[in-house]
Amino acid sequence: MISKPRFANKTIDVVGIGNAIVDVLVQSEDVFLETHGLIKGSMTLVNEVQAEKLYQDAGPGIETSGGSAANTLAGIAMLGGKANFIGRVRNDQLGKIFNHDIHSVGANFETPFSTEGPGTARCLIIVTPDAQRTMCTYLGASVQLEPRDLDLSVIKDTKIVYLEGYLWDNEAAKKAFITAAKLAKSSGGEVALSLSDSFCVNRHRESFLELVSNHIDILFANESEIISLYQSSNIDNAIKELRSCCKTAAITRSEAGSIVLEGERFWEIPAFKLGNLIDTTGAGDLYAGGFLYAYTQNKPIKDCGEIGSICAGKVVTQLGPRSRDSLKEVLMNYGRY
Amino acid sequence: MISKPRFANKTIDVVGIGNAIVDVLVQSEDVFLETHGLIKGSMTLVNEVQAEKLYQDAGPGIETSGGSAANTLAGIAMLGGKANFIGRVRNDQLGKIFNHDIHSVGANFETPFSTEGPGTARCLIIVTPDAQRTMCTYLGASVQLEPRDLDLSVIKDTKIVYLEGYLWDNEAAKKAFITAAKLAKSSGGEVALSLSDSFCVNRHRESFLELVSNHIDILFANESEIISLYQSSNIDNAIKELRSCCKTAAITRSEAGSIVLEGERFWEIPAFKLGNLIDTTGAGDLYAGGFLYAYTQNKPIKDCGEIGSICAGKVVTQLGPRSRDSLKEVLMNYGRY
Repeated sequence: MISKPRFANKTIDVVGIGNAIVDVLVQSEDVFLETHGLIKGSMTLVNEVQAEKLYQDAGPGIETSGGSAANTLAGIAMLGGKANFIGRVRNDQLGKIFNHDIHSVGANFETPFSTEGPGTARCLIIVTPDAQRTMCTYLGASVQLEPRDLDLSVIKDTKIVYLEGYLWDNEAAKKAFITAAKLAKSSGGEVALSLSDSFCVNRHRESFLELVSNHIDILFANESEIISLYQSSNIDNAIKELRSCCKTAAITRSEAGSIVLEGERFWEIPAFKLGNLIDTTGAGDLYAGGFLYAYTQNKPIKDCGEIGSICAGKVVTQLGPRSRDSLKEVLMNYGRY
Repeated sequence: MISKPRFANKTIDVVGIGNAIVDVLVQSEDVFLETHGLIKGSMTLVNEVQAEKLYQDAGPGIETSGGSAANTLAGIAMLGGKANFIGRVRNDQLGKIFNHDIHSVGANFETPFSTEGPGTARCLIIVTPDAQRTMCTYLGASVQLEPRDLDLSVIKDTKIVYLEGYLWDNEAAKKAFITAAKLAKSSGGEVALSLSDSFCVNRHRESFLELVSNHIDILFANESEIISLYQSSNIDNAIKELRSCCKTAAITRSEAGSIVLEGERFWEIPAFKLGNLIDTTGAGDLYAGGFLYAYTQNKPIKDCGEIGSICAGKVVTQLGPRSRDSLKEVLMNYGRY
């Protein structure tokens, strides 16, 4: 039981800052990864020429709005939370699609479009027959995000500022996030981070360690990310390190569910199976979405984990990283709304 | 048993002429159709302003290459047939997506892109909870197709020229098709038509009747389209009329399978259930694709119907109007390849 609200006098539940990306989902055999020198399960940053070449060689695609934090924020908005996304697209067709999709679920998105320079970011997601995903991201316009894109009055009025680790690949966006994190904390809000992927953690370990120790209240990570962050020999040691840094964390473990930590306590949360597994894209993002929505609604931490787990269980029964069915109804069916 | 090949000395199996369209699939409640004055199950042509308004009001979408004849030709190419698509896109992001997807399955597509004027055509496909589809099409660049886009040497070297009825909404494209049909016939090829939808038949009944009588060897239609074409009181009467016009026809009946007609003979073909029904978009298009592929491979007509039925059965287990799994492998599993 929680006796007093976590946040007082805040009208926005979550502001998410992330790369605004349109996903291109393609199915390929393992040989496609080998031919293009891609490591299965990784997210590789590519330049425009590489992106064109990969796309040219790939099979037919399905385009759908993505971006890790954007998926999380779309989930929060679908659940009825007040969600505000900050990220940069260009004023091209893919940018309009991104803008449409995030508004259509009720999220707020007001970052000005770029009118020149690189096009809207695109992520080629290669799904191999074992259902694993390998991602090649051309960041395009999304790296043009800069500190002045932040609406400071919005940040002050927000319960949680949420960041995706992928932003660490972009200096200006990183600065924007640090600014937002400091302002959120000084205004009585909290700061959440998703580590995004273990390769991203490898690229930015020192910087992430400093960030997690000094700025992060709620950390989302999977097992390989957290082991990579602390360079631990196993998950138990990684969790010990984590406990000394963050007051709240959720470690996701795919079909094994998740572990939720708060101070000295922890809970094991099962995975929820809501249908046949179709595509795991967005599972971690929607877990964070369900968790943060419940957290801003003042639910006990164990419930936050379960609601995250239900949302993740739903999105993996559909193609693409966002649910097309009402997440609110899904929670109602589980007596959680 | 067929003793002699249907076509001699032709290197291309099927040339398809149609609207080059990117589909936007959205899920909506019935009230969305009522609010926007849309008739369930219809395809409505909309202008750019209407298209923007509908898209703005719709939920999150998934973009994927579509277009009726283009879907059929993609299916033929996936099966290993030599397939050539003719249609017009603009040189914008959606046009590049369309171009990528049709090439990625091995179809040939060389129609020059428009470099100015309206953007690549887009079809908003609204899927209601009863799994019915209601389509709103903004034809954009696709209506800029014109007779000079036809490569006459290709038409002469083609077994079948295939047309979608939707082209009848566009005068220049209609002229292009008539030109192609006459040339195909005079070169020893055949001409096939899909009636596309009963509303399209209503818009162009006289013209379609004249076309079917004078130019069409193989007709694809569903029950409501063929009843609409002949304004018959029932399907049996419509089939009687049809027999006197076309040498070969296939009447699709959703989960009831199809009826295939050749001269005085007919066969009832069952529907094949290859998995859970996910999305019926593309079922008719892939039926035609399987049928025409088998037809160009000199298979008996009953086999053409069954192969069409298997391909349709596969595409409805996936989201979008084209199969992402290999249709060749699917046929192999049924001992049909």
